[in-house]
Amino acid sequence: MTESRSDALRPREIAVPVPDRFDAQLWFIGRIHTPWKSRGECPRRGDADNGPECRIEVFHPWAAGLAGIAKHQRVQILYWMHQARRDVMMQNPNYGDVATGTFALRSPVRPNPVASSIVRLLAVDGPILTVRGLDCLDGTPLVDIKAEFGATP
Amino acid sequence: MTESRSDALRPREIAVPVPDRFDAQLWFIGRIHTPWKSRGECPRRGDADNGPECRIEVFHPWAAGLAGIAKHQRVQILYWMHQARRDVMMQNPNYGDVATGTFALRSPVRPNPVASSIVRLLAVDGPILTVRGLDCLDGTPLVDIKAEFGATP
Repeated sequence: MTESRSDALRPREIAVPVPDRFDAQLWFIGRIHTPWKSRGECPRRGDADNGPECRIEVFHPWAAGLAGIAKHQRVQILYWMHQARRDVMMQNPNYGDVATGTFALRSPVRPNPVASSIVRLLAVDGPILTVRGLDCLDGTPLVDIKAEFGATP
Repeated sequence: MTESRSDALRPREIAVPVPDRFDAQLWFIGRIHTPWKSRGECPRRGDADNGPECRIEVFHPWAAGLAGIAKHQRVQILYWMHQARRDVMMQNPNYGDVATGTFALRSPVRPNPVASSIVRLLAVDGPILTVRGLDCLDGTPLVDIKAEFGATP
């Protein structure tokens, strides 16, 4: 892999020393299959109307939790941006004159690299969802699937 | 605390055996202050227009990442629903005739209890955000703050 592009600090970017202990743990409950094999290929933002179809594979024993998902046209996906560094608090994605705080961005570079996307749900086949609207790397670990905001009380 | 209400399985609910190893780790980057001291008091859904003002405290060294946040009227908050069990894949929140899969719900009960809310940003004072639209317990751990969907490219 030659992914140094996003790993080296750019001008005006600031990294901080991070705590030596974590506070909580996640399971990867599945894997996301997309057409994009490197970060450079990924679109800047998913397109739930015109983007390519992607597959979300939910692992055993979690797939039991998919019951009833098919009635939703759109769902929220949380996933783990596993290739991003976690200590950069000021970012300069466009090599501009000023950097922006990480929390004012949606960049993969953040302390807890949990991404959130709303996708269109096209099909459910056992533990496999077919969706449109993702923008992440092929092989991205899945963290959660939720009914869309406002879809259920 | 007498919080057994949400911990015992209800009729038709199903729990699964969980993996004995986790896959990723999180830092709690701050703490959320709300008026609600028990799960029973929490509103079912946050109200970004008429809900009470809540405070989000971002810890050192992460607060540096708030630069530029004030220009956003709404932000997305990820937080950790630390009191929920993680092994229930079919849920019956209303004690109905059928249970629903966890991923077709937004319940706190899920394998990775990361909640997501869109809130209105009212004020930024150093490491403290004042927001409207949360529905979580006082003391809830903060996982992430992001510019709202669509707010920035």
